[in-house]
Amino acid sequence: MKQYVYTAIEQYMLACMRDSAHDKDHVYRVLMGALAIAREEAPVDMDVLIAACLLHDVGRPDQIANPALCHAQVGAERAYAFLRGLGWAEEKAEHVRQCILSHRFRKSAPPRSLEARILYDADKLDVTGAVGVGRTLQYNGTLGEPLYTTAADGSILDGTGEGERDSFCREYRYKLTKVYDRFLTATGARLAAGRRDAAEAFYLALMDEATAMVNAGTQALADALE
Amino acid sequence: MKQYVYTAIEQYMLACMRDSAHDKDHVYRVLMGALAIAREEAPVDMDVLIAACLLHDVGRPDQIANPALCHAQVGAERAYAFLRGLGWAEEKAEHVRQCILSHRFRKSAPPRSLEARILYDADKLDVTGAVGVGRTLQYNGTLGEPLYTTAADGSILDGTGEGERDSFCREYRYKLTKVYDRFLTATGARLAAGRRDAAEAFYLALMDEATAMVNAGTQALADALE
Repeated sequence: MKQYVYTAIEQYMLACMRDSAHDKDHVYRVLMGALAIAREEAPVDMDVLIAACLLHDVGRPDQIANPALCHAQVGAERAYAFLRGLGWAEEKAEHVRQCILSHRFRKSAPPRSLEARILYDADKLDVTGAVGVGRTLQYNGTLGEPLYTTAADGSILDGTGEGERDSFCREYRYKLTKVYDRFLTATGARLAAGRRDAAEAFYLALMDEATAMVNAGTQALADALE
Repeated sequence: MKQYVYTAIEQYMLACMRDSAHDKDHVYRVLMGALAIAREEAPVDMDVLIAACLLHDVGRPDQIANPALCHAQVGAERAYAFLRGLGWAEEKAEHVRQCILSHRFRKSAPPRSLEARILYDADKLDVTGAVGVGRTLQYNGTLGEPLYTTAADGSILDGTGEGERDSFCREYRYKLTKVYDRFLTATGARLAAGRRDAAEAFYLALMDEATAMVNAGTQALADALE
């Protein structure tokens, strides 16, 4: 890809996401992750992959403004129109459109091409490991959700129980632990597996710290109250 | 402490913090941590400690509404007036006032009594370990700050460089790593030390993941661009 083409696509992405530093950081991580995967998954159409990564979330502001919209659908159409306007051939622009459409996995539109599968994996990679825990906690903070919830007796809930309220621990157990089996390329699965222990260690440490303190404190409180 | 007195203080705290689940969770963790420390730091006036823990942040909504106010000062006065109204003796209510006033360490008002030092340590304990990392990331999310920042060449900054922009990694290196030496009780220092590795492991994993991906991706991007 020519440098000026990359810059044009990047500037379009930045314009689409002008209000969200969080989303931009994610886009660059997805691009870096996809390029890291692509090195071991030849042959890859790098033009398509780079464009698809940079543009995969350009529909997100639309979905935030109107939750009835699907950011993958909106982004796919917008990316296609932009690339055609940039002079890209129908076939290449259509390939990017398919990658973006399928990055949010739906049975009706699974990622089929190698480039689509790499984009999907790079996007998923960003919810694994310490990076995934960090992003989830940041989002958790914007929602005002707690790190964990407690039972009526004050004991710490681990996030797995039926009917537990939303918390970081619940999101971790219900979503973050499930992603490692869902990678579509061997390289993506291997990179994700290498990050798994860091995420699990954080969750276990959080549980241990909270549980140890509550166990000691609850007994002391019971002793102190008449 | 009589159970109905505990309930009265707790209800007053909840009324003061009605809009912030985040702050309430912190208050209960401080109470549990303080009680865990108190078990090994006798003799402790448990009435004073429990009241001081429950009420230590009741001035925080005032400081949020008006940053010129100090939540420790506002909270100390409010707690004193509430406890006097509840029928507490002048000496006990004044002791709670001093604990709350000094929990936000200032040279002009260091924590002096054992109860004040335990409250201070329990409050600091909540920024250590996985719990401290989790709270910092949640707050980081509400501010819209990134996990880390990057240099002009895209390489990951570790949070220690001069003039780096705010990020989780900067907060971790500049604040969270510094707290472990500042505990005022032996038990507080020991509990904090036991949590240190979990926080450091998370930070190092985050740096490793981001750096490995950027190193591989940047090289692949350079190879792909003409």
